[in-house]
Amino acid sequence: MAAGIKHTEGALDLALVVNEGPVFASAGVFTSNRVVAAPVTLTRSHLASASLKAIILNSGGANACTGQAGFHDAQASARHLAPLLGCEVKEVGVCSTGMIGQRLPMDKILHGTDAAVAALASTPEAGAQAADAIRTTDTVPKTYEFSSQEGWQIGAMAKGAGMLAPALATMLCVITSDAILDDDMAAAALSEAVRTTFNRTDSDGCMSTNDSVILLASGASGVAPSEEDFTEALRSTCANLARQLLADAEGASHDIEITVAHASDEAAGEAVARAVSRSNLFKTAVFGNDPNWGRILSEVGTVPESVAPFDPEQIDVSINGVMVCRNGGVGEDRSLVDMTPREVQVLIDLKAGEENVVLWTNDLTHDYVHENSAYSS
Amino acid sequence: MAAGIKHTEGALDLALVVNEGPVFASAGVFTSNRVVAAPVTLTRSHLASASLKAIILNSGGANACTGQAGFHDAQASARHLAPLLGCEVKEVGVCSTGMIGQRLPMDKILHGTDAAVAALASTPEAGAQAADAIRTTDTVPKTYEFSSQEGWQIGAMAKGAGMLAPALATMLCVITSDAILDDDMAAAALSEAVRTTFNRTDSDGCMSTNDSVILLASGASGVAPSEEDFTEALRSTCANLARQLLADAEGASHDIEITVAHASDEAAGEAVARAVSRSNLFKTAVFGNDPNWGRILSEVGTVPESVAPFDPEQIDVSINGVMVCRNGGVGEDRSLVDMTPREVQVLIDLKAGEENVVLWTNDLTHDYVHENSAYSS
Repeated sequence: MAAGIKHTEGALDLALVVNEGPVFASAGVFTSNRVVAAPVTLTRSHLASASLKAIILNSGGANACTGQAGFHDAQASARHLAPLLGCEVKEVGVCSTGMIGQRLPMDKILHGTDAAVAALASTPEAGAQAADAIRTTDTVPKTYEFSSQEGWQIGAMAKGAGMLAPALATMLCVITSDAILDDDMAAAALSEAVRTTFNRTDSDGCMSTNDSVILLASGASGVAPSEEDFTEALRSTCANLARQLLADAEGASHDIEITVAHASDEAAGEAVARAVSRSNLFKTAVFGNDPNWGRILSEVGTVPESVAPFDPEQIDVSINGVMVCRNGGVGEDRSLVDMTPREVQVLIDLKAGEENVVLWTNDLTHDYVHENSAYSS
Repeated sequence: MAAGIKHTEGALDLALVVNEGPVFASAGVFTSNRVVAAPVTLTRSHLASASLKAIILNSGGANACTGQAGFHDAQASARHLAPLLGCEVKEVGVCSTGMIGQRLPMDKILHGTDAAVAALASTPEAGAQAADAIRTTDTVPKTYEFSSQEGWQIGAMAKGAGMLAPALATMLCVITSDAILDDDMAAAALSEAVRTTFNRTDSDGCMSTNDSVILLASGASGVAPSEEDFTEALRSTCANLARQLLADAEGASHDIEITVAHASDEAAGEAVARAVSRSNLFKTAVFGNDPNWGRILSEVGTVPESVAPFDPEQIDVSINGVMVCRNGGVGEDRSLVDMTPREVQVLIDLKAGEENVVLWTNDLTHDYVHENSAYSS
């Protein structure tokens, strides 16, 4: 729906996702930020006491840092929608994305909700319009479909321009499936899928107040997949969407895949990968097509030994397949590295264990500075 | 000395600081990075067993990530210098700054050392030349002088373009005094002075492999100050130099002072200030003269409760004196904030205790991206 929340005339800004059953399973994963937007607080509490049957999402305003009044606004959305769908208020989830610190125009939201209920449709067009309606600075909508050989499917949409903007509600994702699940299996599968996908995508290290990933399953296929099969399909769904978000990251010119090999454990590998992914010096070097391994190594060295045991003089670093740093010192000639592809692959071998961790980020560019200094003004 | 280490013909690149006594007290504070340059490893070990009498410093190469060979190079510098000054090898400190991952041209270093010893002078010109010789991307040399009413003095020089570049040896600082100190008092005073000055200056969150702050005291004034007086003078010396480094930060257009008020304790306040100082979204907003308090609040919310207890709905944020966020929500009209001055003052009131912490950073600009993407190529 174009509810008039966005300033652009006719821009889609409201989406409704409804589970028509016969099964109603749901799960959600939310931002770990302590400054949490009102719709996240509300949806989290609903999920704790019920299975969600519907999600109402808006762009054009995050409803974050809006106090008790903002929380009442989110509640009003759910209270308005529930009787229209014949469900309970606690079965409604609410997601918002846009500027922080502004109240939502509730008259427009509620009118738009009426129109969205009247226009509910199970068509590809309706799905595409919903994915479009949750965009903010996204240049393209992000969707993904998965069909199992057993006859169950997953459909998903996400918004987010590379985890880049907490003044926007960085990332929203709604995943639907016609598989037969229960809430426990939905929660376990979602948590596992998000852990190694969205949570390993770190564009600029900034954590949003509104991040929400919600799964609804209807059982309409009549097929109950194994937890292993469903989790793997969900993982590939989340991985695909995470890469779409990163590819649309504001101003990025390189996607960067950081692999930490032979870490002592997963937490150690992730800490090292995250430290490197958050180094502005490393990220500007990549923007400059500069295989500057010294900036990688000095960032690896900031991780405390209690978190990641390793010997700095044993570390190898390869960039796009060329081992430019061997045993903590100079390796192959750095001029052998071809930095022209969009994707840059960094391999950091800690030689401290058996665990491998992969994390994705992007470079720091003039366009990032431009878009984020000009955004709200 | 112009020893020929830098590629530019005639550029000063080698400096020698000698303590002529009668007292020989010294102390040093070094990077906490686990990837540590050879001269830091060497100087740390010398300081552990002796008082330093001389420091030899070079720009044009960091001698970091150079393995055992690099360590032998640093040792060779100390071994060459000690007999020329009639002191022991362990009484020599070595500091290097420049690109990571390249061996130093030792022939030039050793010849330059001979020339530096021959040219030793206690003149203002010699001091200015030394401050010039340790520059890398610094646009100006940084020095500071302090004279006490009791007759003792402090003189100091530093290099660093805003803690911005671990591919450079980010920061070197040598502080001399003619006060009568012993090593214990020198170490205690230096540690306390650095804690609230250099360690609260966080330009881009990147930690160098070479950071060194070294204090030498000669006792030549014949005056023994109280520990309190000397520490306070040293603190103001370090604070002044830290602000000089920040003012010269690569590409910065705003200096930013972040004050966290009413934190539960110092660590809590520092964690909150540091989180905000490392947010690219906050820093690009300041570059865009945008008083975007939502980006501050969402960064404050990333600090775990175990580190900094506070209620997100109690936080006030003022920018340049205007309280744009009150109790976690919208406060005064943001258009009242004047963002044109070079210095931007951010006050975050946690209302969680009695501790106030101040930290300095700068904005993230096009020039930062340009200088750091173009640096090594």
